[in-house]
Amino acid sequence: MGEKGNTRELILETASRLFQIQGYYGTGLNQIIAESNTPKGSLYYYFPNGKEELAIEAIKYTEHVLLQKTKDILLSANDPITAFQLHINEIAADFEKKESIHGMPIGLIASETASTCEPIRKTCLVTFEKWQAVYAEKLIESGFPAEEAADLSILINSMIEGAIVLCLTKQSGKPMRIVAEKLPKLLSLEK
Amino acid sequence: MGEKGNTRELILETASRLFQIQGYYGTGLNQIIAESNTPKGSLYYYFPNGKEELAIEAIKYTEHVLLQKTKDILLSANDPITAFQLHINEIAADFEKKESIHGMPIGLIASETASTCEPIRKTCLVTFEKWQAVYAEKLIESGFPAEEAADLSILINSMIEGAIVLCLTKQSGKPMRIVAEKLPKLLSLEK
Repeated sequence: MGEKGNTRELILETASRLFQIQGYYGTGLNQIIAESNTPKGSLYYYFPNGKEELAIEAIKYTEHVLLQKTKDILLSANDPITAFQLHINEIAADFEKKESIHGMPIGLIASETASTCEPIRKTCLVTFEKWQAVYAEKLIESGFPAEEAADLSILINSMIEGAIVLCLTKQSGKPMRIVAEKLPKLLSLEK
Repeated sequence: MGEKGNTRELILETASRLFQIQGYYGTGLNQIIAESNTPKGSLYYYFPNGKEELAIEAIKYTEHVLLQKTKDILLSANDPITAFQLHINEIAADFEKKESIHGMPIGLIASETASTCEPIRKTCLVTFEKWQAVYAEKLIESGFPAEEAADLSILINSMIEGAIVLCLTKQSGKPMRIVAEKLPKLLSLEK
């Protein structure tokens, strides 16, 4: 990747991290410029339409980074319960590392902008649906009927997003560990 | 309630609504003053320490309004599955009313401030724990052992918070309806 590509990626990486932790409205462009260590002109060069455009690209960047990671971990076990527990416990572990600051991949920016910025809401919706499609695919491969898999994928997505809110507030991975622990009941094939 | 009490409550009602929809960082004090139709001096009179103090009181106000509502609906059915389904479907219905704008009672402000404002984070934590205590009490009354009830109350809280994020983004009550529908599996007493 050339110098230019690097600068754009540095900006996106910093923006997506700050939007995750502080939110869209809590993060100013000046902080993104300062923390990405890029010249002020670069942000306006790569994102001429400003903060909204940057946020949309940052959400796509987060999606790009995390979706493949999710696919990989779900592929690492055949049994869907084991696979989803690996995925969920990996998120829990993120909240148990003392040093690092964590955020919601896109849940915070989605909530902030749902009623205030239609283009960002739509981008978040597409990203959530891609996540749910990855979950549903794993469930269908494991024998769940398509409709049941679609509903369960929305439920798993809900549980993870909500547990992130509680983990952040509690500064603990415990709510996410509970999600992993209770998952077998939800994924039992019999009703 | 006297004039003064009304003014304070008007400010809190407006602040809690705006923080729910637009978030803490997305809402300015001037908007709260304008939309509450109160004199500018009143906000500074009742909340001399400014926005952070107002947010903490607004969270407590939201808690006060919604916690009793939650207790009442959980009391309206003996069977815990029915009771929680009534509670969850009532939240879903809120997202299905076309006219109204909805938010996350405290999930958005909790996520925004978890790493950025310790006094607000702690207030949100207390509120979440009160909610979970109400859920746990219902489960214990229904025969769940205390520890299991505590874990399930965190799980139900997670599912609802996460489904709110998805309902907001999807502009639909469906994610919440799925939570209600799948609840019986989670609340089955056998492992």
